[in-house]
Amino acid sequence: MSEFVLFTDFGRRDPYQAQMAAVLQRSVPDWRVVDLHAEVPAFALELGAYLLPSYVPEFPAGSIFVCVVDPGVGGPRDAVVLRADDRWFVGPDNGLLRVVEARAAKARYWYLETPGAASASFHGRDVFAPAAARLARGWRPEGGGHKGRALPEGWPEELDRVVYADHYGNLMIGRRAETLRPDARIRAGELILSQARTFSDHADGMPFWYVNANGLVELAVYQDSAAHRLGLGPGDPVQVLE
Amino acid sequence: MSEFVLFTDFGRRDPYQAQMAAVLQRSVPDWRVVDLHAEVPAFALELGAYLLPSYVPEFPAGSIFVCVVDPGVGGPRDAVVLRADDRWFVGPDNGLLRVVEARAAKARYWYLETPGAASASFHGRDVFAPAAARLARGWRPEGGGHKGRALPEGWPEELDRVVYADHYGNLMIGRRAETLRPDARIRAGELILSQARTFSDHADGMPFWYVNANGLVELAVYQDSAAHRLGLGPGDPVQVLE
Amino acid sequence: MSEFVLFTDFGRRDPYQAQMAAVLQRSVPDWRVVDLHAEVPAFALELGAYLLPSYVPEFPAGSIFVCVVDPGVGGPRDAVVLRADDRWFVGPDNGLLRVVEARAAKARYWYLETPGAASASFHGRDVFAPAAARLARGWRPEGGGHKGRALPEGWPEELDRVVYADHYGNLMIGRRAETLRPDARIRAGELILSQARTFSDHADGMPFWYVNANGLVELAVYQDSAAHRLGLGPGDPVQVLE
Repeated sequence: MSEFVLFTDFGRRDPYQAQMAAVLQRSVPDWRVVDLHAEVPAFALELGAYLLPSYVPEFPAGSIFVCVVDPGVGGPRDAVVLRADDRWFVGPDNGLLRVVEARAAKARYWYLETPGAASASFHGRDVFAPAAARLARGWRPEGGGHKGRALPEGWPEELDRVVYADHYGNLMIGRRAETLRPDARIRAGELILSQARTFSDHADGMPFWYVNANGLVELAVYQDSAAHRLGLGPGDPVQVLE
Repeated sequence: MSEFVLFTDFGRRDPYQAQMAAVLQRSVPDWRVVDLHAEVPAFALELGAYLLPSYVPEFPAGSIFVCVVDPGVGGPRDAVVLRADDRWFVGPDNGLLRVVEARAAKARYWYLETPGAASASFHGRDVFAPAAARLARGWRPEGGGHKGRALPEGWPEELDRVVYADHYGNLMIGRRAETLRPDARIRAGELILSQARTFSDHADGMPFWYVNANGLVELAVYQDSAAHRLGLGPGDPVQVLE
Repeated sequence: MSEFVLFTDFGRRDPYQAQMAAVLQRSVPDWRVVDLHAEVPAFALELGAYLLPSYVPEFPAGSIFVCVVDPGVGGPRDAVVLRADDRWFVGPDNGLLRVVEARAAKARYWYLETPGAASASFHGRDVFAPAAARLARGWRPEGGGHKGRALPEGWPEELDRVVYADHYGNLMIGRRAETLRPDARIRAGELILSQARTFSDHADGMPFWYVNANGLVELAVYQDSAAHRLGLGPGDPVQVLE
């Protein structure tokens, strides 16, 4: 028994996440469905692509991630099953899985056929969840698949942009904190931020950066919104000064 | 084993949906609870009534829908258990279930008593969920019940209004797409929309209508918000031009 | 088998609640996780402290509440396990649990150590959920613990402030309705409100107060938002006139 992990831009308000989860739970009742994220920035594949890997180590080997940020649904983009080290990922082949793929020590992927009965607009429910359910029940894609690819042309190793703004106003950056020296400073909006270990270290109200609980660089202000203070949101760039 | 399906205006932010779901899970641990919708437009019974049927076929025979949009809670409105073809529905008798009831090939309904200990304001937790749990455990309402009714006086077969605006800004219309010719046009706001098969067919940014993944007419714009572009929201009318 | 109950300010949009719930479900698969609240007002310990007790009796004896509103996470504040009558509570010792503690007939608490591997910013996932999971599996904190404390200096028996505004615009007050005479009036904003039994009793559109389904005083307007009508939100004071 293991876990399905949902990572989408389906929106917490809307019924799509529950519809997709229902397919999984109905097909594989003894697996857990972790409804991790429904608020990945919509349409913004690159932001989600650099956010996703930060959550991967938190889930056990054998987990199956169902990842859907899919503005091209119904069009010519491919669908894939990706095996990256010990975990599976199912989703559109539009970039969303490419950072996980590129960073894996061992990665292979397979193209996934779209069943004729699938709707044109909801492949999460009609293509990706059924494929994830089949994987959970032991199905494996045919053949050896394709060797995992490097990052798409022009994509950086680390993305110095806001990839997610949480409801506190904390700003997650698409950069692994382990790539920075502790004394690195980050230019964000019109300010230059240094590192704090934890929120209350900067009770003076100055914005700071810290290593978030999933290993990303994150910008924050003690008991206030960094998003408002810095005037930044998803997609906006920051600059590392080393 | 089958499924409870929640369809309410309880709000995703608020604790009400979880409180109601907890009653169901505690009473019938071996059924799944599909937390489908908590954001049906508040107070707007007709909108929810035409939205609900689009989700019904997605759930297995024997499923029990707990449906609560209930501005008259605690007042004189009745509560009902409805059997519509192969599924059960529990909720207030205020119109919310009437489109499902009218469209069913075979429908019967029974009035539901309000337990004396029920709160005056939260019948989802205190009346509807307990009744749904009893149904799941095999209880059946007494007697043959009442024959399913036609639509309420003045309600149309299809509702040419926005019944839901999702977080992308897509606008669901209370009309089954199967009632339209593929070349039908829809006047929405100041524009006239024609059909597209999928989002990327109209990458030019023109709004269009399409058959959504639950069979309703839906208005959309590729990678943009139809709600903003058309200036429309829940309750606003559109006009089919055939 | 019993229930974990989540009560946090983690935000419904964000992944934190799911990350914490996943730890619980993975560790204790046969318990239910009731995802009660993720929208307790952020940073506002006193508001959450007076809101929490209203939900407690709804959950069975033996339930374990995981309560996290924790602006001082990573700093010097303590973490505690609280036994209050028949239920357990795990969370920061920053005031959030103090109303439950003070009102319990029998309360004891124990300090909780922070594992060295815990992140500095997400004790919900790394400290409180693991402790709750251990409790569920039979672990008990060592020694007799400390005797439950009275309310913190200066905290009132009942808090005449808005502790939560729901998405309808209803305003929950931090006062148990049983402490008021039925004919009590409440000054809120510029209006003076009297009691109604249920929403439709005041179909005239006048704001009123009523006993909510969890026993708190709540301000509401029939089919409208009391928050907008009264110009009040979380933290704002009201005044009981008796």
